[in-house]
Amino acid sequence: MALPVVLLTDFGTRDTYVGQVKAVLSARAPGAPLIDLTHEVSPYAIDEGAWLLETALPFLPAPAVVLAVVDPGVGSERLPVAVRAPASSGTGAVRYFVGPDNALLSPAVSSDHRPARPGPSPVPEGLAVRAIENPAARLETVSATFHGRDLFAPVAAYLAGGGDYESLGPPREELTLLPPFGGIAEGEAIRGTVVHVDRYGNLVTTIRKEQLPDAFYLDINGCRIARTVRTFSDAPRGQLACHVDSSGFLAIAEREGNAALRTGAARGDAVLLTPS
Amino acid sequence: MALPVVLLTDFGTRDTYVGQVKAVLSARAPGAPLIDLTHEVSPYAIDEGAWLLETALPFLPAPAVVLAVVDPGVGSERLPVAVRAPASSGTGAVRYFVGPDNALLSPAVSSDHRPARPGPSPVPEGLAVRAIENPAARLETVSATFHGRDLFAPVAAYLAGGGDYESLGPPREELTLLPPFGGIAEGEAIRGTVVHVDRYGNLVTTIRKEQLPDAFYLDINGCRIARTVRTFSDAPRGQLACHVDSSGFLAIAEREGNAALRTGAARGDAVLLTPS
Amino acid sequence: MALPVVLLTDFGTRDTYVGQVKAVLSARAPGAPLIDLTHEVSPYAIDEGAWLLETALPFLPAPAVVLAVVDPGVGSERLPVAVRAPASSGTGAVRYFVGPDNALLSPAVSSDHRPARPGPSPVPEGLAVRAIENPAARLETVSATFHGRDLFAPVAAYLAGGGDYESLGPPREELTLLPPFGGIAEGEAIRGTVVHVDRYGNLVTTIRKEQLPDAFYLDINGCRIARTVRTFSDAPRGQLACHVDSSGFLAIAEREGNAALRTGAARGDAVLLTPS
Repeated sequence: MALPVVLLTDFGTRDTYVGQVKAVLSARAPGAPLIDLTHEVSPYAIDEGAWLLETALPFLPAPAVVLAVVDPGVGSERLPVAVRAPASSGTGAVRYFVGPDNALLSPAVSSDHRPARPGPSPVPEGLAVRAIENPAARLETVSATFHGRDLFAPVAAYLAGGGDYESLGPPREELTLLPPFGGIAEGEAIRGTVVHVDRYGNLVTTIRKEQLPDAFYLDINGCRIARTVRTFSDAPRGQLACHVDSSGFLAIAEREGNAALRTGAARGDAVLLTPS
Repeated sequence: MALPVVLLTDFGTRDTYVGQVKAVLSARAPGAPLIDLTHEVSPYAIDEGAWLLETALPFLPAPAVVLAVVDPGVGSERLPVAVRAPASSGTGAVRYFVGPDNALLSPAVSSDHRPARPGPSPVPEGLAVRAIENPAARLETVSATFHGRDLFAPVAAYLAGGGDYESLGPPREELTLLPPFGGIAEGEAIRGTVVHVDRYGNLVTTIRKEQLPDAFYLDINGCRIARTVRTFSDAPRGQLACHVDSSGFLAIAEREGNAALRTGAARGDAVLLTPS
Repeated sequence: MALPVVLLTDFGTRDTYVGQVKAVLSARAPGAPLIDLTHEVSPYAIDEGAWLLETALPFLPAPAVVLAVVDPGVGSERLPVAVRAPASSGTGAVRYFVGPDNALLSPAVSSDHRPARPGPSPVPEGLAVRAIENPAARLETVSATFHGRDLFAPVAAYLAGGGDYESLGPPREELTLLPPFGGIAEGEAIRGTVVHVDRYGNLVTTIRKEQLPDAFYLDINGCRIARTVRTFSDAPRGQLACHVDSSGFLAIAEREGNAALRTGAARGDAVLLTPS
């Protein structure tokens, strides 16, 4: 029985890119369940892709293969890799992460083993990283611009079908990683950024639930938000409010409205939390 | 063999919300076919979600589980429910509808048993409604804002896998329902609204095929449309025309064009039909 | 074991159109893998749909059924057809193409058998075309505007389930076809058009890799582009450059940017390549 393959890319769905990837997966790992996490990562936004993967990870199956591609450097010297990591469930099940070594696969490594600054970092104990070099695990012709189809999908299918991980290529001692997602202390305040704007216009920040003081206000793009609620419907209609979202991060929402439109804020914008 | 699970939400696809729901379904009801009806219901638009579900329902499998989430009141006092309803096919097959008790599940009840005004209504004979209370049928931790993943998906998986409906929670004698979709008589005229704007910019109204006089004109947003056609290609290119769409409702289209852009009309706008 | 069904339409995903099609496929060909190639073909854009299908085709499974619907003439006199074509893999496997006879199915016919001008063309040896007439292979009621659900999906399911191709309807000696995609010589220059704008804003042209001189510049919408790169990361950030994309066609990209926004060009715009 083939392992499920979970897909996360910035390919969008207006092209046939995702369809071609799935056709390759279906042909090479017949019967493997395919689960689309999302294909709407902002184009080239490695940090957003990593954040989306990290927050979904606790809900993903294990064992499984995660095929993640946000790859502005496709065809350049960045390395294609496959990571093998224990699932946090403690069942001994593993997950494989297949994609470019450009920090997108950071969620394969738990926060306490991630570096303070982004960059190549030692592979922690218990994890394995392999460069993808085995020609038997790719399509015959590899294009310069579509490694998702020609290289990563065949490798994901190979692993989903029970292929030998070690045979993919030589082991690597480093993996490019992002620091743990979180706000950064600035005196009493905490500085964060908007890491993702969701479908409802909710602005999700990098500030974690555990970092929140009892009472605070938040500044974003010239707006100050003093209200904190447990869920959307605790806010008056049309009012901005902070809440801890389902991923465990501080987010700004407008009840039955669109906080991104309301504040004019966008992905990458700074937020400043001040205890009150 | 697990029942198919049909999904309809306003989650969109730019987040991992749908992916997380599917990961939960896959883990808890392995092998259950998952059919995406749509995830692009306008945010918070319960009436549009109900209309989209109602018009697709005749084409859905039975037995099946329908997981429907458009839930502006998530985390508030609105009740999570599971409805069991006979499929209209007359085969004795049933469909389960899992979601919030906020009128979104109205299509589980046939039009002739729906109230004249929206609100809690008696459950008609042959249907059953249960509050979802059984902790065994949800994720261990239920977040305040993502019941789709934490509560509705596990219940849908439970029912798809043959779980006991009665064990979900206590029976309910009322379900929140919308009136039947349809235009409202105003003297000789019929008043309706635009309930949905489709991908092509076609404006679908609440006026039903059965309500149409032999000849009429339609006013919408300052435009008067006198032409009625059987299919798009019967209209001159670039001309607006009324037709009965594939769901059985009166719609306004522009041949190979976009009626929404042309008229400036949007979801929720009024239309007035006058016999001629 | 049912054949995989590959779907390509201009239905978008904000409606339940695709969901209804899949519900019909699931009910009539249970277990058939469904692969979405894309549903975001520009509305009514037959040429773009054919190009998207043609460039994905080498990566699609065989045997398989391709269900393709971009159908501005739905309900008019254009014929619903099913094509049987050998897969180019040379394995003897066949693919069925089900859809309207409006040139969308051109990729079923290899370039060297396509006409110089669009229109009805003789069916080449080895291929078969049947009109879809058999009432047993459609839904009981066929709407005027949704043949994807009522007619093409049941036929695709019928073929995926091993149904008899010949029984669909009478053979046809002609099929409506587009010329091969390619640039057109204009003296020393080559004229092409933008056939597709992808998710990243890359402008893909009709000019084929094989048509490229060693050195050239390209004019599009008042911009002249002299740089040619092998992959995106070979261009300076924020600069426009030409490259051969993963489909084998000349494309214009901006590294980590959006060439469509940068140039103001859109689908259908002319490009002129001049050797240098």
